[in-house]
Amino acid sequence: MPGEFDLISWIQSQSKPSEFLLVPPGDDLAVLKWEGKIKPPKTDAGPAGRNVDDLLLAGVDQVLEGRHFESSKHTPEQIGRKVVNRNLSDCAAMGCLPAALLVAVALPDHLRSAADGGTGLLDYAKLLYAAIKQTAAAHYCPVIGGDTASWSGSLAVSVTVLGRSAGVAPVTRQGAQPGDGIYVTGPLGGSILGRHLTFEPRLAWGRQLATYRPTGLPCVKAMIDVSDGLSRDLPHLLAAGPQHPQLGAQLDGDKIPLHPDALALSTQSGKPPLHHALHDGEDHELLFTSPVRPPIGIRIGTVTAEPGIRVSGNLLSAGGWEHPL
Amino acid sequence: MPGEFDLISWIQSQSKPSEFLLVPPGDDLAVLKWEGKIKPPKTDAGPAGRNVDDLLLAGVDQVLEGRHFESSKHTPEQIGRKVVNRNLSDCAAMGCLPAALLVAVALPDHLRSAADGGTGLLDYAKLLYAAIKQTAAAHYCPVIGGDTASWSGSLAVSVTVLGRSAGVAPVTRQGAQPGDGIYVTGPLGGSILGRHLTFEPRLAWGRQLATYRPTGLPCVKAMIDVSDGLSRDLPHLLAAGPQHPQLGAQLDGDKIPLHPDALALSTQSGKPPLHHALHDGEDHELLFTSPVRPPIGIRIGTVTAEPGIRVSGNLLSAGGWEHPL
Repeated sequence: MPGEFDLISWIQSQSKPSEFLLVPPGDDLAVLKWEGKIKPPKTDAGPAGRNVDDLLLAGVDQVLEGRHFESSKHTPEQIGRKVVNRNLSDCAAMGCLPAALLVAVALPDHLRSAADGGTGLLDYAKLLYAAIKQTAAAHYCPVIGGDTASWSGSLAVSVTVLGRSAGVAPVTRQGAQPGDGIYVTGPLGGSILGRHLTFEPRLAWGRQLATYRPTGLPCVKAMIDVSDGLSRDLPHLLAAGPQHPQLGAQLDGDKIPLHPDALALSTQSGKPPLHHALHDGEDHELLFTSPVRPPIGIRIGTVTAEPGIRVSGNLLSAGGWEHPL
Repeated sequence: MPGEFDLISWIQSQSKPSEFLLVPPGDDLAVLKWEGKIKPPKTDAGPAGRNVDDLLLAGVDQVLEGRHFESSKHTPEQIGRKVVNRNLSDCAAMGCLPAALLVAVALPDHLRSAADGGTGLLDYAKLLYAAIKQTAAAHYCPVIGGDTASWSGSLAVSVTVLGRSAGVAPVTRQGAQPGDGIYVTGPLGGSILGRHLTFEPRLAWGRQLATYRPTGLPCVKAMIDVSDGLSRDLPHLLAAGPQHPQLGAQLDGDKIPLHPDALALSTQSGKPPLHHALHDGEDHELLFTSPVRPPIGIRIGTVTAEPGIRVSGNLLSAGGWEHPL
């Protein structure tokens, strides 16, 4: 069955590199050269050695009824918070600062027939926008545009985030080297018990990691946020590209931090907690590789020249979930 | 019944002006100061007299099943083209250059069960993306990001457009003065007969109008694209603000250009063609005011100090359609 990754591959194949688009679709965020304002190099070098004083980063992420939330169970505050934090987590994974959000909301007509006399739709939209605005404002990120319409369909919220490099080279998914340590910023697994709605985007840690240069070079080589699950997201850091080979990883199962939710879910699912830590999604911790000891992060393994991901010696099947399209 | 404009007013009331956000939500696009790269004024002055070499503009606009298209009647090519051109038309109305698009697509699960063996969903998504990419590429505007997911809901496509001022001050909706001529770039009415899918965004004209300075000052004072209908969009150019009073307009009914579609629809609706030219939406011609004769545009009336819109002397009721939320 074709999945989301098939489409992403196809979109990437349609996208030509350009002077404008320094990092094309397929990373957490695209990186743009904002023309006319690029000063001579001063403090840092970004992709392809360009100055990174103020690169523009941009990405879009949506949440849909029945896929990412259930409006019968979850409040508009929870839904608004989740969609913003998913986008802010992409900023964290690039080491950039969030700069602004744009929001498109498709509101179901049935909200109109609320018991309060027909203002249900507007009231719901206000609660949703207020949560979006508040969540973003906590990271100094204004909502600068929006489009709202009602329809006979279900609730869909799409958020575009703009980010700023602000002097720090964006950290992409490419750049891992054999021998790099593999690190994660927090415990994994079981987010479905509620953490998928309440997680905190690791913006400060992402920025700290992107800035840390103990040897004069960036300590972090490649970074992503764990949205689809460790077993699905780690391969993005190991994937072959035009100028680098396919890599692999040796993970130490005993070192992978288990979230208490993974333990709790284990008692329900009958699967070991490590299964949930490896394969569950929506943790939104940062996953990265580094050749030196980073200021934060738990080491869970090592990048290898040999392809394949091994956990305590056993080859890992890709048990995380690819979004079915 | 609360409508879209109630929500926009509320969102605007929540948005504080800032050094970063030069034009806040409520215009065709927001205008951002992209920090750290603002050079001393050289060629032009934008909002509040700032340099406009490379301001960042951004906006989002979505199309929804049953509201903006019907996927049973319209092809993915038509739907993709429409959503992009709606966004490019917002760029035209600001006089900016489109720079990049981001796309979020919510694909209905039922597309999966296509007769061709289950690849229907991916094929549909590819056709949609190809149309989006091709429509944008015609205006040198790359697609730099996307998010695609399937769900049990209906087709929804949300596009965020980024624009560049590139040395020309963005034209906002505010700035009309009593005595200004009111101009439109083409004939209006009856777009529902098909033109709502096939219109061309007036990018070159918008840029030409924003650049035209016969007296050393911008000729165009305020501009918008006709998306909701002349009777609904003109009031945006006449609205009171913190530093300017409510204005009005005298329109000459005989001068308002009637599209052949308005004539054709008139024979079906029994309403006069002028009714359709005044109240139909989705023409996406540019509507603007100017104190001097502009290089393009048909003069249809004059801005007045007295509030209210009069057509050949008769006060116009707001017969355009506010999007019901």
